[in-house]
Order: sequence, then structure tokens, then C-alpha cells
Amino acid sequence: MTVVVGVDIGGTKTAAGLVDRSGALLAVRTLPTPAARGPAAVVDTAVDLVRELAAGAGDVAAVGIGSAGVVDPRRGVIVSATDAITGWAGTDLRGEVSRRLGLPVAVDNDVHAHALGEQWRGAAAGHADVLLVAAGTGIGASVVIGGRVLRGAHSVAGHAGHVPAAAAAGLPCPCGGRGHVEAVASGPALLADYRGRAGAGAAHLADVARLAADGDRVAAAVLTRGAAALGSTIGGLMNVIDPEIVVVGGGVAACGALWWRALREGIRAEALPSLREVPVVPAALGGDAALLGAARMALEAAG
Amino acid sequence: MTVVVGVDIGGTKTAAGLVDRSGALLAVRTLPTPAARGPAAVVDTAVDLVRELAAGAGDVAAVGIGSAGVVDPRRGVIVSATDAITGWAGTDLRGEVSRRLGLPVAVDNDVHAHALGEQWRGAAAGHADVLLVAAGTGIGASVVIGGRVLRGAHSVAGHAGHVPAAAAAGLPCPCGGRGHVEAVASGPALLADYRGRAGAGAAHLADVARLAADGDRVAAAVLTRGAAALGSTIGGLMNVIDPEIVVVGGGVAACGALWWRALREGIRAEALPSLREVPVVPAALGGDAALLGAARMALEAAG
Repeated sequence: MTVVVGVDIGGTKTAAGLVDRSGALLAVRTLPTPAARGPAAVVDTAVDLVRELAAGAGDVAAVGIGSAGVVDPRRGVIVSATDAITGWAGTDLRGEVSRRLGLPVAVDNDVHAHALGEQWRGAAAGHADVLLVAAGTGIGASVVIGGRVLRGAHSVAGHAGHVPAAAAAGLPCPCGGRGHVEAVASGPALLADYRGRAGAGAAHLADVARLAADGDRVAAAVLTRGAAALGSTIGGLMNVIDPEIVVVGGGVAACGALWWRALREGIRAEALPSLREVPVVPAALGGDAALLGAARMALEAAG
Repeated sequence: MTVVVGVDIGGTKTAAGLVDRSGALLAVRTLPTPAARGPAAVVDTAVDLVRELAAGAGDVAAVGIGSAGVVDPRRGVIVSATDAITGWAGTDLRGEVSRRLGLPVAVDNDVHAHALGEQWRGAAAGHADVLLVAAGTGIGASVVIGGRVLRGAHSVAGHAGHVPAAAAAGLPCPCGGRGHVEAVASGPALLADYRGRAGAGAAHLADVARLAADGDRVAAAVLTRGAAALGSTIGGLMNVIDPEIVVVGGGVAACGALWWRALREGIRAEALPSLREVPVVPAALGGDAALLGAARMALEAAG
């Protein structure tokens, strides 16, 4: 039986899963990402997790890794990254892991891995043309066309958080620009908006979601505004990309029915008539999506 | 020598060109499109043009047709269309032309044909990943990935005019929606904006362009606003699609240096840092682009 390991390297934790050719997740191991200690320590952690899973599994054919940052999958290198992992940009992730393990290694951005996972075994299974949007600390996307992730000419494709949105006009965006949808629809943007309007404390986005569900009007208005803005952006992108299905995941997508209603209304207001029935569904695999997508990359690398 | 005929069916005129395998345009014929007389008359006109070109050329291997409207290239059928050609939606264009001429026929949307032409022999030659934007009566686009046009799951891909734009907030769009960039950046939108602000006559967009070039402040403001809005939309789409090059054509792109400056500034304000040096260039083939793209489709159909 061919098994591979999929690894998901995030700023907080690194997860690895043993996966077979059918996409069954046989075992999962997780460790905190030693993000402040730099690339060598992060690579060590990933390698340790693969070895631990492999020890119980016999032959592992290949490793796939989804990582935060802009990744060049042809070279297996981190092109650029935020400071979530110290010194991460420039890391030759494929080279390092492959040298240490003596296995074929495939590397890609974590949002792309997420999309591949959902397309393989999750909410988009059976669909070749998928727009996946991940709404969390940032807003990212992955465009799958004919079953293949669109990476773009500079490995930048999918940065849907950095599309101009009327509701974000003038607001500073983490990218350095202004007026992008991420500035109004990301988790931190929603939390800041709530704190600004309520003049009071919500420690986490989940608190805002709970307040909204309990009838708090300010919390509801905050979630509605963010979801409507994101929906508007998604609707516009659908008119350009024309997917079979739209999958929305990430922590922000866990904000409940009110958020989803505003998202769908935002999409519907923009989508051309022939796209109004395109399904818009929540991601189904949760934290396992990127693991499974990375495992699928590994299976391709294993041949 | 293999020759093919490329046909460009527009609401006003139908043009056909005899093209060889290298992309040389050997002869061109044009007739008014009998748009009010319906599909049979329009097909007759296209067939007559092909026969006329073929008469002087010996063996024509195949015919490619770019047509206004949403086209399903797999079936060769017009899926939907505006009323520019009476009754055009539903026309089995490939079936009709193929039956009449006894030749392989490929059919696609005219903006996609335009993009293929520019990518083959024009401003995007040598580039596999291209975003082409056609700004005219409407705003359309074609996304070329790895040398192939993105058609989408419902043949709708490329409708970049129907992306929300802050500058268009609340304005009605020809699609029935509101706030889309086409409502502020198309030729008719620019002309209406000028007439509204100046309270006076400009018969054509070219008049507004001339006034702006001569220092008329209202005309300059109108072009700047439209171009900046379109640039903003293009910049956002670049962050999602990540092309090697952006080509902008259509009648609105002939509005002069002031329009182009505002377009480029709008793009630059949105594009992520690693995309700021992506070339943004005018289309190079003018009215021949769609002909040549259609001819390239014909060469593929001829095998």
C-alpha cells in the first residue's frame, strides 16, 4: 500500500498526516511551530513529525507540504512571507526536507493545499473548477481549473484579499495598500470593527459571533458588513473565473448563519444571471484540508 | 500550404481573413452584419465571406469564428447574447457554418478570440499567461493560462466588466446589477458622464478624448475617473490571476495618454508589490486581433 505524509506548516502549529492513495487519513500528529526560532527549527519539527508517522507505517513514498507564505512550487522555495515565522522567506523547504528524509517532496502555499484537499475529499469533491476562499487572519483564495491549482506567473495567484471593495474604501490593508476587502472582512478587521463600535471588549471573533447569535445588534451589524463585502468580492470574481462551485472556509466562516446569509446575499447581488445557482458551500474538512491537499501533492510527486 | 479563415462577427460588421500557419494575414474581406435580419442572414454573410476568400486561395483547412455573446465552444452554440444581433442566442453557429461549407469550424466569444490573436501575433506574443481587457461599449476580458483561454464552467469566464468598483457604487450596470466597473468605465458610461457634467454635446467618445487632450478639464476628469476605476479593477484581478502581462484594447483604450496614465496609476495602487512591474501594454493588432485569434482556433480545429 502506498502511503504519503501531508504536512501543514502554520505560524502556530505544524500538523502532519499519514494518508493513503484513496485519501484516507490514517494518523495525525501535531506540534507547536517553533516560529520564533527560525527556519532550521521549523524544518526540524516537520521532519520529526514525518519520521514519527513513518515509523509506524512502513514505506512512505513522498512528502507534501503546505506552508504559509508565497511559495514557488517549481523550486519548492518560500518566495516571501509575513513575520509569522521568523526568517521564513528564502527557505529552500523542498531541498531541506528532501535532503533530510531522502524522499520526493512537493511544496505549495497552504491555501492552495487547502483547496486541493477540499477538491479531493471535501466540499468540492467531484468538481474540476473550484474557487476556494479562506477567510481568517487574512483573506486568501485558490482557483482550481480543470483540477489544477492556478499558481500564476509569479506564484502570487489567489490573493483575493487584495481586491478593491467599496465597503473598505480608504481603510489600510495589511499589504500596505488601501481599500482591499481584507481590510473589512478578515477576522482582525471584524474584531476591530466590533471593538470600535461597541467601545467594549470582545477578546475573540468567536465572542462577536456568539453575541450576534444572541441578538446583539452591533455584533450582527459588524458580521453582516464584513460578510456582505466578502460576498460582493466573491461574486465579482465568479464573473471572471466562472467556477462550478465556491467553497468558503477559515475561522471567519465559522461565524454562523447570519454571516453566511449576508455572504450569499452579497454574492447574489453581483453574480451574472447564469451564475446565480452556482453552489456556495462551507469547507468540509476543517483543519484536515491542507493536510490532505499536501498529501495529494505528495502522491503526484511520488508518481 | 495550410490556410484557414478567421471570422469576426460583430453587431455592426463581419470581417473575415485568410491566414496561414505562421499567422500572416493574407487577405481580408468585410461586410455589414445584417443584424436586424436574424441568425440565418448573419450566417449567410459569414459563409459568403469565407467562400470569397477561399475562391482565391485553393484549399481552406478550417474556419474559426469569434462572435459577440456568450459562446459555448464545446458545442459551438451561442448561449446568450444582447440584442445587437436579433435572435442570436441559441444559434448553432458551428453546426450551421460547418454544414454549409463542409469544413471543421471552431467557435468562441470575440473577446477570447481577440486575446488569442494578441497572444499569437500581437502585444502578448511569447507570453503564456495573459490578462486581456477589452474596453469598449462594454468591458470584457479574457484570461489566458498556459496559452489556453479560461472559458469557465458555464462559458462565462472573463466578464471583468461585472466586478464591483467603489467608483461605480450605486450606478446601474447593463447586466441589471449595480456598482460594476462597466457602469463607470465603458465608452457609453464615459460619454454619459461627460454630457452630464458639461451639460453639452460630445457626439462620440473620440470627441471627449480630443477635448481632454486640448486641456478641457471636464473631459480630462471624466477620462481620469473611468480609467482609474478600470485600473483599480485590473489591479485587483492581477492579484488573483497573476498574469505575465496585461493587454488593454478596445475603443476606450484609444482615449490617449491621459487615460493610460490614470489606468496605470489605478493598477499600481492595487497590485501587490511583486506584481508592480508586470507590463501593462496596449493591444497591438487593432481590428485584426479577433480575426487572427479565430484563425488560430481554426488551425487547432484543422489538427
